[in-house]
Amino acid sequence: MKKDILIIGGGPAGVVAAITAKKHYPSKQITLIRKNEKGVVPCGIPYIFQRLNSVEQNLMPDKSLLDNGIELIIKEAKEIKANEKEIIFENGDAINYDKLILAIGSISQPISIPGIEKENVWLVKKDYDYLEKFREAVLESKNVVIIGGGFIGVEFAEELSSIEGLNVSIVEKLDHCLITNFDEEFALAAEEKLINKGVKILNNKTVKEIKGEAKVESIELDSGEELQADLVILSIGAKPNIELAQKAGIKVTEKSGIAVDEYLKTNIEDIYAIGDCAQTKDFITGKDVPMMLASVATTEARIVASNLYQLEIIKGNKGNIGAFSTFVDGLAIGVTGLTEKKAKEEKIDYITGEAEAPNHHPASLPGTEKIKVKLIFSKSSENLLLGGEIMGPESAGEMLNILSLAIQQKVSLFDFNNWQIATHPLLTAPPTAYPLISAAQSALLKLKTNSII
Amino acid sequence: MKKDILIIGGGPAGVVAAITAKKHYPSKQITLIRKNEKGVVPCGIPYIFQRLNSVEQNLMPDKSLLDNGIELIIKEAKEIKANEKEIIFENGDAINYDKLILAIGSISQPISIPGIEKENVWLVKKDYDYLEKFREAVLESKNVVIIGGGFIGVEFAEELSSIEGLNVSIVEKLDHCLITNFDEEFALAAEEKLINKGVKILNNKTVKEIKGEAKVESIELDSGEELQADLVILSIGAKPNIELAQKAGIKVTEKSGIAVDEYLKTNIEDIYAIGDCAQTKDFITGKDVPMMLASVATTEARIVASNLYQLEIIKGNKGNIGAFSTFVDGLAIGVTGLTEKKAKEEKIDYITGEAEAPNHHPASLPGTEKIKVKLIFSKSSENLLLGGEIMGPESAGEMLNILSLAIQQKVSLFDFNNWQIATHPLLTAPPTAYPLISAAQSALLKLKTNSII
Repeated sequence: MKKDILIIGGGPAGVVAAITAKKHYPSKQITLIRKNEKGVVPCGIPYIFQRLNSVEQNLMPDKSLLDNGIELIIKEAKEIKANEKEIIFENGDAINYDKLILAIGSISQPISIPGIEKENVWLVKKDYDYLEKFREAVLESKNVVIIGGGFIGVEFAEELSSIEGLNVSIVEKLDHCLITNFDEEFALAAEEKLINKGVKILNNKTVKEIKGEAKVESIELDSGEELQADLVILSIGAKPNIELAQKAGIKVTEKSGIAVDEYLKTNIEDIYAIGDCAQTKDFITGKDVPMMLASVATTEARIVASNLYQLEIIKGNKGNIGAFSTFVDGLAIGVTGLTEKKAKEEKIDYITGEAEAPNHHPASLPGTEKIKVKLIFSKSSENLLLGGEIMGPESAGEMLNILSLAIQQKVSLFDFNNWQIATHPLLTAPPTAYPLISAAQSALLKLKTNSII
Repeated sequence: MKKDILIIGGGPAGVVAAITAKKHYPSKQITLIRKNEKGVVPCGIPYIFQRLNSVEQNLMPDKSLLDNGIELIIKEAKEIKANEKEIIFENGDAINYDKLILAIGSISQPISIPGIEKENVWLVKKDYDYLEKFREAVLESKNVVIIGGGFIGVEFAEELSSIEGLNVSIVEKLDHCLITNFDEEFALAAEEKLINKGVKILNNKTVKEIKGEAKVESIELDSGEELQADLVILSIGAKPNIELAQKAGIKVTEKSGIAVDEYLKTNIEDIYAIGDCAQTKDFITGKDVPMMLASVATTEARIVASNLYQLEIIKGNKGNIGAFSTFVDGLAIGVTGLTEKKAKEEKIDYITGEAEAPNHHPASLPGTEKIKVKLIFSKSSENLLLGGEIMGPESAGEMLNILSLAIQQKVSLFDFNNWQIATHPLLTAPPTAYPLISAAQSALLKLKTNSII
């Protein structure tokens, strides 16, 4: 049995690749292989406890696949025979392909903490049945300790802090939660929100041992502190899932994933890799930086799916900028491109601009909140936008996407000076103090002062 | 008495010009002349009745001017003596300048309806004392008729529809309210919201006479219908205020305003014009199109204020794209650049793309609403974004600004294909169906189908 286009993986990358390919090549037979009966929305997982109130409500519907005439096979692919253009399943069945797209995602980072094997120590897996059990266990708990204060850890903490009678702690080995992604002032704002929700944050701490009989009872930290815990969540990050590709002789690197070019081609003809499993390069530095984001995955999916039979859209992936947002107790907080800290580490000649403004105007309007913005521009080469951080009410999430586009389109400080925006009293900051423009203005004036000196 | 930089007008254009100039030229003496004691926020005016609950809450604070060391003179300028570089006030006082920036705004379009002089027929003026009386009169009314269903008319209608016991009608001469700015499907959505709030909309109707003794009692339409009315609001648009400039021998055109170049210079050395009083050209067609928007005004203010003494920022105003948004009973609705209707009228070779998506994901999250998007791309030249319309919950207001930037930066269909966004369950549409990208994808596929045929 031979399929024209075979996609392994049912996450956002696989789904978008399948649907986009069908639209570009309606006459082709497209098949998506997925190992789980039910697919879950990856970024919805933290919200199954309260906001969604079930795992069922977090299903990724198969409707869009089926409506587009995409065949769905629920089986686990065990081997790729690249020479034969063949996939072997766990049960020995085989299937052939003309084009193969690997969208096989990521796996949890290996971690070795003594006691990690105890009952009620949970990983965050994109698996329906696992999540059902996980959810029940959380709802029966009194003291939850989350190990790792990145996005997932913070989102779990915030969601779980709404459950009455549940004590939530985060153990983070760095100075602050989210500090890998944000400059300190933004990370601190998120922590403040968590603390207000009753979350206990233990920064600069590592876990020495997970203690208890069969089941976890407490966590001992390297500092000697002991935390009561009847449930532990490991949110310690993920790494590209490369096993299937590696065994097939596809070029991979342990840290970065399956090696791909800017059109997501692997080193083997007619095999492509997209999403978490594929190597990503930083848009600005060009360095290999693993970036596991559904929005990066779907961009790659669009690029690959429109270029399978000929190079139609001559615009490859020039690198990933990274655009992340989260929502902590009413505060949207997002980052794209470089932070100031990262710019320093990478020895980039940069200049910052900051601004604060109300999200409605006049600020006397009921329900008006503050938006805070920090922009990073290149100081010496064309003064391009290199990064931005933002926090404020919900609409800050879309303001961040203005910056994500601006970085990709190489927008400069001076473009912001001339930018015409839509403002409205009930929707945006005032035209006299729109924070993305004000922040750029502040950088512009620094540049001017600098050039005089 | 001679000032370095003199600005006439205290609206958004004047204020931003003053503050930006002070930041660029801290040693210069900067003076702003304004005729009214108190400045009001122009776009906040519709909201003084309910949401702001007073005119007082809609004041434009002088704090930012005073904090920046800008001198404020409350007087009406009556004459510009360009040769003497002198301004004459109403009381005969004079003041000299080195650089003069005119930010003298707009005045109401003249309109001749029999009975317009009757008591309780109100214009929308940016005048504190006038607005105080206007507000009181509205709150004492039972039947308000709004003549003109543009942005201001619609915003007044929506705000007033929240006042208990007040009947609100709009008389609009075109097919739909907002139809000058939006394609029909978007205008209809706004009308639907108004109708749900109890507003009576009379489209394709003109007013024959405003009837009553001293005070307005009813409105007779050309169709013969008669509407009860104890208060009438004329929201019939504005035109550039050119009188002062014209008398001074500055080049003006009746329809478009004070003639300026891309750096906002008038034909007379050291005199500039910005904001509603200044001529604007359409970004795409290059035509003279009056565009009176605070956000255009503030952009012009930034350009002029940074280039007063030498051309420092070699990036003039290449034309106005127009970016408008409004909020009608929970629905944000915005437009930037060309609509489809306008593209047809202008004989532009275009292609559209449309998409609809939930604003949160999974869509089962409580409070999830729909976002609808329509994009217009050039079909034959580089497939650039030419226009966009959007409606949805509050964050749609900032999504529109993504499009306003994209038009100005000449972003193409194919750039959208590769655009990496930040998505989050509680903040945005899903990465698999982000509507700005999906709409671009739909246009891209039409283009492809077209090129095959």
